[in-house]
Amino acid sequence: MRTVAEALDLIDDSVVPRPAQLTTLLESLGQTLAEDVVSDQDSPPFDKSLVDGYALKASDDGTGTRSFFVIEEITAGRMPQHEVGPGTAARIMTGAPMPQGADAVVPIERTALDSVTERVTILSEAPLHAGINVGCRGTSMQDGELVLRAGRLIRAQEIALLAELGRSWVSVHPRPTIALLATGDELVSIEETPGPAQIRNSNQIMLAAQVTALGATPYVEGIARDKLEDLRQRIGRGLQADILCLTGGVSAGKLDLVPQVLKELGVKEIFHKLQIRPGKPLWFGYLPPERTSDNLPRWIFGLPGNPVSSMVCFELFVRTAVRRIMNLSPAGPVPVLAELETDFQFSDPRPTYLPARLEAHGAGWRVKPVDWKGSFDLKSTASSNALLVLPAGPNRLSQGELVEAIPFTGRE
Amino acid sequence: MRTVAEALDLIDDSVVPRPAQLTTLLESLGQTLAEDVVSDQDSPPFDKSLVDGYALKASDDGTGTRSFFVIEEITAGRMPQHEVGPGTAARIMTGAPMPQGADAVVPIERTALDSVTERVTILSEAPLHAGINVGCRGTSMQDGELVLRAGRLIRAQEIALLAELGRSWVSVHPRPTIALLATGDELVSIEETPGPAQIRNSNQIMLAAQVTALGATPYVEGIARDKLEDLRQRIGRGLQADILCLTGGVSAGKLDLVPQVLKELGVKEIFHKLQIRPGKPLWFGYLPPERTSDNLPRWIFGLPGNPVSSMVCFELFVRTAVRRIMNLSPAGPVPVLAELETDFQFSDPRPTYLPARLEAHGAGWRVKPVDWKGSFDLKSTASSNALLVLPAGPNRLSQGELVEAIPFTGRE
Repeated sequence: MRTVAEALDLIDDSVVPRPAQLTTLLESLGQTLAEDVVSDQDSPPFDKSLVDGYALKASDDGTGTRSFFVIEEITAGRMPQHEVGPGTAARIMTGAPMPQGADAVVPIERTALDSVTERVTILSEAPLHAGINVGCRGTSMQDGELVLRAGRLIRAQEIALLAELGRSWVSVHPRPTIALLATGDELVSIEETPGPAQIRNSNQIMLAAQVTALGATPYVEGIARDKLEDLRQRIGRGLQADILCLTGGVSAGKLDLVPQVLKELGVKEIFHKLQIRPGKPLWFGYLPPERTSDNLPRWIFGLPGNPVSSMVCFELFVRTAVRRIMNLSPAGPVPVLAELETDFQFSDPRPTYLPARLEAHGAGWRVKPVDWKGSFDLKSTASSNALLVLPAGPNRLSQGELVEAIPFTGRE
Repeated sequence: MRTVAEALDLIDDSVVPRPAQLTTLLESLGQTLAEDVVSDQDSPPFDKSLVDGYALKASDDGTGTRSFFVIEEITAGRMPQHEVGPGTAARIMTGAPMPQGADAVVPIERTALDSVTERVTILSEAPLHAGINVGCRGTSMQDGELVLRAGRLIRAQEIALLAELGRSWVSVHPRPTIALLATGDELVSIEETPGPAQIRNSNQIMLAAQVTALGATPYVEGIARDKLEDLRQRIGRGLQADILCLTGGVSAGKLDLVPQVLKELGVKEIFHKLQIRPGKPLWFGYLPPERTSDNLPRWIFGLPGNPVSSMVCFELFVRTAVRRIMNLSPAGPVPVLAELETDFQFSDPRPTYLPARLEAHGAGWRVKPVDWKGSFDLKSTASSNALLVLPAGPNRLSQGELVEAIPFTGRE
């Protein structure tokens, strides 16, 4: 059986980013920039006032003159009409262009205007410096400057900068689509009351939420029964998405028909079964581009049917594939080092990823495993926001010891 | 002028959560649970097998018998038909109910089946224990147990648990709607080429992205010109949202008509101007419920026109109001303690929130201010993912010193 690290490497190697496409600027939030962005302007585009006040020449103030004749009023959006000369100033609004001859702005709060004589007096004793309260042309960025590199996640900050540059469309690696297909005769939809031996299909909507939290788009393909024909139809439909996540149907039982159907449909196995708890039965494969209508590959995860196993496998492995399709780096999970909150003993022949609670503590992190009853125990995961990483074999850990924890997407 | 702490307290005191309403389960992702949730079932609902294998009585194995007659096959979703007695076992699939008389499951990988005699032999030497590979009824939660309290953010984990309980609808404090209205004669839309003295309206889409990243819903109300009639119409329309964010028009200049129009429309000022850099002109008020058609209050932020000031005021103050409307606690920003990456000197008469880069480092955080040119400098914010908090006056900070930093929403 492969290790978690081997599985993550295989995912990283086999999944490729989706081809870049143009999207509108607001829609690009949470996607990955697929182009280098060069500024086609200076910013600020002109010397501008950063406050409401009076524009004048700083050296003119230094001569002792504290009162100036106001020659015009410059509002934002309009060009100044007059040059400021000795003994004169222009009333100026925030964001308005500086007039010729002026190099500083005195904020209105530090002045008094005599509206009869149209003279303004500076009330502050502090000397003026050239440049004060002025945003000079090109200080933020210059025409021709590379301002954003391809591969960067687009957040509100990038959107603001792209908007300033007039980029109403931008090239991104688009969000992946993820089809979710639950399998198993024991499942009923969440609106139904389970009969004896039945349970509700909680996995599918949980995975839809995990997909959404990651910024990708879920497609819910319902429940496939443990019959070849139903599986064939629904898996075939799910293979239209970038990633198909199946739950159940990949462990070692006689009724686990999923690998058989996937093989029939041309899906190649990359790995099956991992040294991990929970999540040992994980299956991963791909559909080569020559088998798809758009010549783009598909990736397929067979997640275990137990809900916590599915949740953990999604956070570790599906998330890595999603980030790789989006061309985000690093694609794989990034653990934080955290102090263990209590002594803790745990032993398992497989490396274990235990639901845990991670909290900021002083200048670092503190983590505590939650009281987890097993891979069916969803209730305990609601107290968790991370996975505590434990190596195989006996772990005898002491309070305060540093351990690795992987925060869940949308940790809170 | 009020302090940042006073302003946050005023927002926390005056903003109230939106009334609870029912929403579909997947839509509840990122909203706040508005009801206590009690389980109406045991979970697991029956003793179930956690693996594919053979169900038997553990004590029966202890007698030395390592070979069992297979009496039936139990697939997931079906009830067992026979009791397991001494010397017998049932073939069982993951998720299927345990048969009467059995209390342990041997995984299929550790067995060999003779299909002629229908006898299964256990290959492992390890003794069996009662309960092994069995999920016992009620171990995760019990009928009548309080499993989720009101006030909790709904993540994928909560959705999974609510799905298990059959809660296809759930009561939440809904996401706030936020209207965004830019003001100023200097603004052109981002598709246009600015004339002399003009700039693109980058604030509005930046704020729309910040709103979206927070899980709230933005409504873009366009650009209002510096004219009373245009402002009246657009502000009136924007007051239909839970929060109206104006940008520009609240500093000290003659053309800052926004406070006048707000007053006319019945909006009460709570504060105007703060001891903060950037963001000093911030305006905050509310429209009392008796002035609205649905008898729910509205909250109004007048954000400064400079883009970085708007960005910072959103992260500190609007975000606090949004979390309060969603009934999330704590509503206000939560700083982390981080080691300063380099020596750093900074002096300003107001407390300053500087764009900075926060990175995980060992078991804690490391932070470095970015090369920030002022409140117009969006480019530098693209390198930032946090705000470094600096008190008023001279700050002479040394490398390695612990400082406060507030991560941006969606930090990466």
